[in-house]
Amino acid sequence: MSLPERRYVISFGCPDRTGIVAAISGFLAEFGGWIVEAAYHTDQETGWFFTRQEVRADSLPFGVEELRERFAGVAEELGGRTDWRISDTAERRRVVLLVSKEGHCLYDLLGRVASGELDVDVRAVIGNHADLAGITRAHGIPFHHVPFPRPGADPEAKTAAFAQVRQLVDAHDPHAVVLARFMQVLPAELCVAWSGRAINIHHSFLPSFVGARPYHQAHTRGVKLVGATCHYVTAELDAGPIIEQDVIRVDHSDSVPDMVRKGRDIEKVVLARGLRWHLEDRVLVHGNRTVVFR
Amino acid sequence: MSLPERRYVISFGCPDRTGIVAAISGFLAEFGGWIVEAAYHTDQETGWFFTRQEVRADSLPFGVEELRERFAGVAEELGGRTDWRISDTAERRRVVLLVSKEGHCLYDLLGRVASGELDVDVRAVIGNHADLAGITRAHGIPFHHVPFPRPGADPEAKTAAFAQVRQLVDAHDPHAVVLARFMQVLPAELCVAWSGRAINIHHSFLPSFVGARPYHQAHTRGVKLVGATCHYVTAELDAGPIIEQDVIRVDHSDSVPDMVRKGRDIEKVVLARGLRWHLEDRVLVHGNRTVVFR
Amino acid sequence: MSLPERRYVISFGCPDRTGIVAAISGFLAEFGGWIVEAAYHTDQETGWFFTRQEVRADSLPFGVEELRERFAGVAEELGGRTDWRISDTAERRRVVLLVSKEGHCLYDLLGRVASGELDVDVRAVIGNHADLAGITRAHGIPFHHVPFPRPGADPEAKTAAFAQVRQLVDAHDPHAVVLARFMQVLPAELCVAWSGRAINIHHSFLPSFVGARPYHQAHTRGVKLVGATCHYVTAELDAGPIIEQDVIRVDHSDSVPDMVRKGRDIEKVVLARGLRWHLEDRVLVHGNRTVVFR
Amino acid sequence: MSLPERRYVISFGCPDRTGIVAAISGFLAEFGGWIVEAAYHTDQETGWFFTRQEVRADSLPFGVEELRERFAGVAEELGGRTDWRISDTAERRRVVLLVSKEGHCLYDLLGRVASGELDVDVRAVIGNHADLAGITRAHGIPFHHVPFPRPGADPEAKTAAFAQVRQLVDAHDPHAVVLARFMQVLPAELCVAWSGRAINIHHSFLPSFVGARPYHQAHTRGVKLVGATCHYVTAELDAGPIIEQDVIRVDHSDSVPDMVRKGRDIEKVVLARGLRWHLEDRVLVHGNRTVVFR
Repeated sequence: MSLPERRYVISFGCPDRTGIVAAISGFLAEFGGWIVEAAYHTDQETGWFFTRQEVRADSLPFGVEELRERFAGVAEELGGRTDWRISDTAERRRVVLLVSKEGHCLYDLLGRVASGELDVDVRAVIGNHADLAGITRAHGIPFHHVPFPRPGADPEAKTAAFAQVRQLVDAHDPHAVVLARFMQVLPAELCVAWSGRAINIHHSFLPSFVGARPYHQAHTRGVKLVGATCHYVTAELDAGPIIEQDVIRVDHSDSVPDMVRKGRDIEKVVLARGLRWHLEDRVLVHGNRTVVFR
Repeated sequence: MSLPERRYVISFGCPDRTGIVAAISGFLAEFGGWIVEAAYHTDQETGWFFTRQEVRADSLPFGVEELRERFAGVAEELGGRTDWRISDTAERRRVVLLVSKEGHCLYDLLGRVASGELDVDVRAVIGNHADLAGITRAHGIPFHHVPFPRPGADPEAKTAAFAQVRQLVDAHDPHAVVLARFMQVLPAELCVAWSGRAINIHHSFLPSFVGARPYHQAHTRGVKLVGATCHYVTAELDAGPIIEQDVIRVDHSDSVPDMVRKGRDIEKVVLARGLRWHLEDRVLVHGNRTVVFR
Repeated sequence: MSLPERRYVISFGCPDRTGIVAAISGFLAEFGGWIVEAAYHTDQETGWFFTRQEVRADSLPFGVEELRERFAGVAEELGGRTDWRISDTAERRRVVLLVSKEGHCLYDLLGRVASGELDVDVRAVIGNHADLAGITRAHGIPFHHVPFPRPGADPEAKTAAFAQVRQLVDAHDPHAVVLARFMQVLPAELCVAWSGRAINIHHSFLPSFVGARPYHQAHTRGVKLVGATCHYVTAELDAGPIIEQDVIRVDHSDSVPDMVRKGRDIEKVVLARGLRWHLEDRVLVHGNRTVVFR
Repeated sequence: MSLPERRYVISFGCPDRTGIVAAISGFLAEFGGWIVEAAYHTDQETGWFFTRQEVRADSLPFGVEELRERFAGVAEELGGRTDWRISDTAERRRVVLLVSKEGHCLYDLLGRVASGELDVDVRAVIGNHADLAGITRAHGIPFHHVPFPRPGADPEAKTAAFAQVRQLVDAHDPHAVVLARFMQVLPAELCVAWSGRAINIHHSFLPSFVGARPYHQAHTRGVKLVGATCHYVTAELDAGPIIEQDVIRVDHSDSVPDMVRKGRDIEKVVLARGLRWHLEDRVLVHGNRTVVFR
């Protein structure tokens, strides 16, 4: 759905019971709320209920703040263990991108933004190398070069570099921090600070080929498909909740560089999809799994 | 979702307006109805609202007949142009299959039924050739051979053959009449009589390659993927509402027989998916398009 | 390619050097050999050259035995480290299937054989349960029930059961021993005895989710695609050379039983493809990787 | 394959007969030619034989001009109806892009070139609108704005505009003229002048939805997948030889703008693949079909 009208997006979760849908839809109906899109899911194993509803802003007689206040009452009646948020599509999503040398994901995202397909505010691009400064600035976006020490070389310099990255990122209070092939493992404290907002693209079909050089691992194992995984970053490497995955066929004639090249087309698309869904509040996380209301 | 509990499935459509979800969910909540699965959709072009809801039968204090009566009142309040039905998963779905010589779809469906994956009651298989009588009967299912005249040869014999097919089919009042590579074009009157229940599998990615010998057409055009389409049968050939489609890659090394062979794997799966969704009341038709609440 | 003419299939591998293609094609041309299909590959990492050539039998002035003798001379001139075989499509491929309770792969393969799509001689089906005896015998194929003890219960009984399986299998000297969801881990000695002929279908996208209950593992990890892998059986569990893989999309609404059901459609197709390629001598193994000349 | 060494690429076709492979490989072996990659195909219907061979340049004792001269002799011995060319990977491929307002294919191609993935010389971008001048020039590539009259408005102005486009294109003698969502139908004379070099991306799975607004057509028909087709431009609209196609899943919840957005990801990838294969001489055209030696 890609509609222009301003909408309020309600994401809600709680232990399943009867009457949840009735309570929420009754509340909205009482004030004339026009539900443009609605999705529901109950996880059978955990017994957790999830819903996401888009309401036309102009159908309600009050603004988003009052909606939040009033909805808090509804949520309270549904029990203490609810987990919800209400966002306003009129608030443009702020994004900061972390990159290294490989530019395919950056080129792709900037192209989507420039063509209007992805209507977000890319506030800054931060690179541990300066290779991608030119294209970033050609799009009118600030580029910050934060050099990192060689792997294992200088722990203090690394800590200082991450502190600088954190400062640059947090200055924008972004809705998403995108590791667009950043190639540096986030320290645990940043995983916590950006929990639910830091999104990584890993160049394998996780959980296969965690860590470094996944295409080399894939080639050695002789797999017939290579993949990419977009996931939330958590303290455990490449183990966070998966938002989206896809694969592309390879065969014996594909060398590692061929796999790298073919895989890029999947990485770009998987990251772009995952980021869009995250920014549209379509991804609800519960434990280490996601519900994606596409 | 593949849960064992008995459920009532409400399929409902009407012009979109506020309060529909509230009215339905409020009605269900009033009687303690436990919604196991719910889906909603509004078509922006036609302004038509669709919903499908599964309610646990044991959560309601009355049976399906009373549910239908009571729901009729809810529907009436939502305006005169509603279109709805309520089915009961306790009623086993009756299916009749029409076949010709090619057995791959029949083998596949019978295998799914035998292994319990597709829990339906295949009442009969009718073939215009007898080739598939053996495997059908090995599964304990009656097979009826209704010979057809050669194409264009004897219109009266053809009419008589279709009359016999109709009689054999209608005796079972089936939820689905599946043309599992039947290779005979249904007369208009049967399209009407079985409207919304006659399901065909066409061996191309429609609307490409309507009619006869679609793989030959595909080979001549030099396409790089071949497909299959599961659709409701209407009077216009291969033009009915599409339920499901899929494709498989081919290349220059594939002769027509290779395409036929590869295509079969798609035909089987696309038909099985489409039939399942139809029998689970997941397919809502509006005009010539379908909403499939998977 | 699915041609009716009798052909000789040459599979050949050796360290890469110039003149290999010329030596082989020159030899064939000398006797008027008509190459119907030819494929070549050089692995850049190992420097190993692979080729597969189909020659029309009626284009050569001698039979397959003399072809083998004469070709041995060609191979010798190409160095001592060659690895080759020549098969004759006139020799019908013998296959033995090992099954357990889950029938979807068996139903699928038997359907392909019955419809003539897979022109092989299924000599026997062996099950550690008797559930699939009926459908097997309905196809006119002998079924042997070899009961196995419970996991870990009685090692001697297990050894005896495998000895019986081996005897039943080896009596047919099959070109392929297919573990069509057999659910028992082959002992190392059988992996050796049937090396390059024992083909397994594993219900995950390997190397993810090795071992038992891969769909449960996949559900827990929250992956967005589930897959299947057809591979040669080796002593290390689920680690043999991969012949074919494919995946199908799942999402949060899919419970483990849903994943099992959707995955079956991939398992069937991946196994059927892998088996076909194996029986057509399209799979050349080198180390733990395969070259598949489709 | 993505190797750095200079190679000569032989593309060859002729009526099938015995000894072709032997003649070519024997010729190469005589001079020590090291075949890095080789592919063969015989079309059963037309009886036409195709081959493509990559030879390491440094393995031959002469240059590409002498190779062509000598190979002409080989070809002549194989009969008068041969169709062949030999290209040199040391000659960088020249490409001119034609665009309109939609930038996704342009952004994608420029990103691939900038990142080194697609090693071609984009000589110029020509647009009938000026929207994409900025991004083009940011990549250091000349942009020419050639305004076109409104559809049907001024035939003479249109002729003049195409004459200008032709002049701008032909000045570079490009290996490929890419219609990257150009949205203007090439006149027949340009189709002839650029025959085998003009490559279009059409935003549907041809032959479905020829002509204008294919996503609208797809939405109206209710298809469950949308596609894209990369093909050579011929005088008949959207009917030229197909190089590559792919599809992406859509469903009832996708409006036309959603289909447009999702389809873009397929268009970009399909065009990039098709262009790469064309520039690597992997596409052999015969009649209205292509052989693509990937």
